[in-house]
Amino acid sequence: MSANKRFLLVRRPNGLPVKEDFSLVNGEIPVPGDGQIVVRNHYASLDPAIRGRMDDKPSYAEPIALGAVVGTSTVGVVVASRHGNFAEGQWVRCIGGIEDYSLVTPNMFTFAIDPDEVSSVTHYLSVLGPVGLTAYFGLLNVGKPKSGETVLVSGAAGAVGSLVGQIAKIQGCRTVGIAGGAKKCQRLLDDYGYDAAIDYRNKDIAAIKAAIDAAAPQGVDVVFENIGGDILDAALLSINQGARIALCGLISEYNKVDGDRGCRNLWQLIVKCASIQGFLVRQYIDQFPQGAAVMAEWIRAGKLRVDEHIDEGIDNALPAFLRLFEGSNEGKMILKIA
Amino acid sequence: MSANKRFLLVRRPNGLPVKEDFSLVNGEIPVPGDGQIVVRNHYASLDPAIRGRMDDKPSYAEPIALGAVVGTSTVGVVVASRHGNFAEGQWVRCIGGIEDYSLVTPNMFTFAIDPDEVSSVTHYLSVLGPVGLTAYFGLLNVGKPKSGETVLVSGAAGAVGSLVGQIAKIQGCRTVGIAGGAKKCQRLLDDYGYDAAIDYRNKDIAAIKAAIDAAAPQGVDVVFENIGGDILDAALLSINQGARIALCGLISEYNKVDGDRGCRNLWQLIVKCASIQGFLVRQYIDQFPQGAAVMAEWIRAGKLRVDEHIDEGIDNALPAFLRLFEGSNEGKMILKIA
Repeated sequence: MSANKRFLLVRRPNGLPVKEDFSLVNGEIPVPGDGQIVVRNHYASLDPAIRGRMDDKPSYAEPIALGAVVGTSTVGVVVASRHGNFAEGQWVRCIGGIEDYSLVTPNMFTFAIDPDEVSSVTHYLSVLGPVGLTAYFGLLNVGKPKSGETVLVSGAAGAVGSLVGQIAKIQGCRTVGIAGGAKKCQRLLDDYGYDAAIDYRNKDIAAIKAAIDAAAPQGVDVVFENIGGDILDAALLSINQGARIALCGLISEYNKVDGDRGCRNLWQLIVKCASIQGFLVRQYIDQFPQGAAVMAEWIRAGKLRVDEHIDEGIDNALPAFLRLFEGSNEGKMILKIA
Repeated sequence: MSANKRFLLVRRPNGLPVKEDFSLVNGEIPVPGDGQIVVRNHYASLDPAIRGRMDDKPSYAEPIALGAVVGTSTVGVVVASRHGNFAEGQWVRCIGGIEDYSLVTPNMFTFAIDPDEVSSVTHYLSVLGPVGLTAYFGLLNVGKPKSGETVLVSGAAGAVGSLVGQIAKIQGCRTVGIAGGAKKCQRLLDDYGYDAAIDYRNKDIAAIKAAIDAAAPQGVDVVFENIGGDILDAALLSINQGARIALCGLISEYNKVDGDRGCRNLWQLIVKCASIQGFLVRQYIDQFPQGAAVMAEWIRAGKLRVDEHIDEGIDNALPAFLRLFEGSNEGKMILKIA
């Protein structure tokens, strides 16, 4: 029986991934070995960081091997188990892949989940999953905003950024969001409670800086950086003494090839006694339940709006993934598999 | 009477400063107003940071006004005083300038000094002055090295770097120094106790990274960064999880004009959950006496070697200053004025 559609990486992308970098195949449904489970994936998380693992360079996660499935967080149901903690029929979030069925050896990233506790099981890939926890711990533990401070968020309409802005407001901060296009900027104001929105499109560094200064008359104390490039260079010019830049992502740079310019305003870190701190949400894995519980409570209290952008079908994996770089998704990008 | 030779900035340099950016004039010896003193400068500190103040851009210190003297730390003798704390004949370290006589309004940066306490009064501009305190607090308070860790220092043969390496050794660290040229690298090993020395000249980023990896088999835990550019990009590729980059200077970038490349490996901060923390020694001004006392003790115990490179005469201010960017000084660069 050939009933496991799989989305494989077959060539390392040069710049933006293209169709020829991947192959759609039909494989066998895997059989679990001792200590393993097989998960029928229902939803897969599409994240900018997946792009990094398509390259063959040192990263926090192993590069995707050529010929292997494009791995990512999924939610699904255990359909076969040889692991004592996960019975058949159990819903889980795990590191699966863009495929109908994933063979999983449960580890610290494998969680039993309860679909009855949320309005949609996809929330375990968005606000209650790595994306939401990235926003929560990245802002609170790395950015360390204090009430009354100004928090600047790039990629502010994205899955992480839309939550960061809302969490910063809950902390009593002024929030300034940067996004691409008038429509997204309107969503920052209308949907995510940002105090000001900046459209970076068609702006050079000086113009972005001028817009930040206008939106942040007291200067910027915390930057939650998802984008990099000109936006980070502009933000560096507007930071206050002692500013903290929580470096979550550099999506503008992920598809770049050699020859591009890099960050040129690091001198501002000296002038302002400021820092850039990179982080990965897995640093805080011990605190995940606590962070998720706080956010679940904020959702129930109507303080946190969660948007998800769900495209359907493994056949659409590439165009769905590329939305992250085009910026055409409205909310956490998720691929519905079943 | 016209007896105050002064070195004035008359044009903002474009890239490396040239003769035409300055003017040597003879002025009057100033007369102190109420609360002011006049200092006969004996030695002036030449530091890379002065280059930043020649530009008209926001920095931690005011830009040097066109037509004004090139200001810097000096040591000298009070020759006229209308300030209760500073009598005529008192030696001081203060913010003076490259001129025979400076009019000074004493502030937190004005210190009475005792030439009898040191083997040379110039030490108040090197190891016991801002340069030495930058090494001390930058390494210990920002880099936070632990015994057994590996500390990488760029500009390692320079005024700050030569001290950083020695202080890191005192902390029980493995020290790797980066400098330009075989001669300087030999000094790193012979004079400053570095465990390994890397000559960055004629090396691209990959070659510098390979040299770092060979010299730091356990990876790099702390980077004390004075240089930036390719050296920082290479260092970023060799850091360990949780590494701290103490950002002291970016001397390779100070004379750059638009169009140059910037730092392209910031993504490593995310991958390694690492940080770049900019700092200014003045953050630690309250702890200066304590830091200077510790270093004075290390000098007496023969644990700290101090090198100074003293050029003579205000007429030589520009070539002496340019040594910092050519790398032709051997030790803290000081201009003897009288």
